[in-house]
Amino acid sequence: MTSSTPAAGRGKRPPHGDPVLDRGLALLAAFDREHQRLSLLELVRRSGIPKSSAARLAGRLTAWGALERDADGRYCIGLRLLQVASLAPRGQGLRETALPFMRDLAGAVHQHVLLVVRDGEQGVLVDRISSHRALSPLYHPGDRLPLHSTGAGLVLLAHAPVQVQEALLAQDLVQQPEHIPVRADVLRRTLAGVRRNQLATLRRGEPVPMVTVAAPVTAQGGSVVAALSVVVPQRHADVRRIGGAVRTAARGISRVLAERGHAG
Amino acid sequence: MTSSTPAAGRGKRPPHGDPVLDRGLALLAAFDREHQRLSLLELVRRSGIPKSSAARLAGRLTAWGALERDADGRYCIGLRLLQVASLAPRGQGLRETALPFMRDLAGAVHQHVLLVVRDGEQGVLVDRISSHRALSPLYHPGDRLPLHSTGAGLVLLAHAPVQVQEALLAQDLVQQPEHIPVRADVLRRTLAGVRRNQLATLRRGEPVPMVTVAAPVTAQGGSVVAALSVVVPQRHADVRRIGGAVRTAARGISRVLAERGHAG
Repeated sequence: MTSSTPAAGRGKRPPHGDPVLDRGLALLAAFDREHQRLSLLELVRRSGIPKSSAARLAGRLTAWGALERDADGRYCIGLRLLQVASLAPRGQGLRETALPFMRDLAGAVHQHVLLVVRDGEQGVLVDRISSHRALSPLYHPGDRLPLHSTGAGLVLLAHAPVQVQEALLAQDLVQQPEHIPVRADVLRRTLAGVRRNQLATLRRGEPVPMVTVAAPVTAQGGSVVAALSVVVPQRHADVRRIGGAVRTAARGISRVLAERGHAG
Repeated sequence: MTSSTPAAGRGKRPPHGDPVLDRGLALLAAFDREHQRLSLLELVRRSGIPKSSAARLAGRLTAWGALERDADGRYCIGLRLLQVASLAPRGQGLRETALPFMRDLAGAVHQHVLLVVRDGEQGVLVDRISSHRALSPLYHPGDRLPLHSTGAGLVLLAHAPVQVQEALLAQDLVQQPEHIPVRADVLRRTLAGVRRNQLATLRRGEPVPMVTVAAPVTAQGGSVVAALSVVVPQRHADVRRIGGAVRTAARGISRVLAERGHAG
């Protein structure tokens, strides 16, 4: 079967990846927040996989439940993946422990409460609690977010291995969504401050003036496994009070993680 | 590459499935709530895939982020799947709309609030909000649950296509976790009552006496896309009051779904 695919025909040695599995994963990767429902032709265009192969693999993914088809025949991500993803220890396990504390915090601050973990040089939003009247959020659960320009990201970056920090500091970093260049020496000082205070504070001007206050969540042994942050409008924000609340909730999550033997 | 697998060797015609993709998916399916971290040998044993193939495919899945390896080298479900799963319209889209209403409800009932969708003849728990002092829950987000022996399931089954109802009614059904047989004629009457009242009430004796009250969530056009339920201890439970609260919250979610053009 694989002999009909261009990738398999390139050489005599087996290719580095697995063409079929990689193609199946590429079909899943064709979906994003702005493209949650795709026709077969859109899948073909966005994944670069030939139509016959895409149709066959999408059929297998649908049979398994990784994809579903809606009433119009378009493909979308299926519930089976939700079930499998719920077994990610760095996602659901952490989330179940954190959510009651996040709700306590949300009740006190009435805006956004975020739980973020680091994946390489990016953060992943594990969950967010937003009040009814909260301003429209920048990130949705599952989204990747930049470490250097989010409050939770600064906490995670400050506690990341040195090679991750250096790799990021070597890049041309830009504060999003304002497009302001970030100087490496300034970021180094910021990270040192975050480690010293065990708290990151980040102000952003767009889309509206907001302030983020974030604190580290640790696992058994003290390693930082997540960051908890609160995002509120700058107007009327009492950063000192919010900092105390975020730190207290983060400590509560860390305590329960340690009790449950969560090793990160 | 596929010629070395038993499935591909069975006949001259291409096999019905795709051996490589199906094997990759079988590796993901080897994980469950009780087996969140698996060594390569455990993966081999639980998936039935030969070791060399399992090692190669697990490597591809890890490179993509569907799997991760912990400090002990064991595999677990990776964050990338959390990100992809967050794009499931029947999961995350619904969840984002429902959560503020679920929190309102949780604030009023102080136990468990569940959001469930139907997938074939089973329910899938999209999310649950539980208070700090709630009793230990039977189901976790992403879990599958039986339609005939959960409150939310009864709502979904009552509004399922007739062929789904008949397929389930033809089986030997047992009320879980008490192992009480469910008679088809009794279940038919229950479902008729659920459609009439737009509310399901289910009492269970184990592990402690609890009562579930569930109401349908509809999308644009009126089709039932989910069920919202509240689980509280039978002692002191005011089912009439809870029913009103659940129905109100379910209507709120349905209203917002219709406003947002969520077609189910």
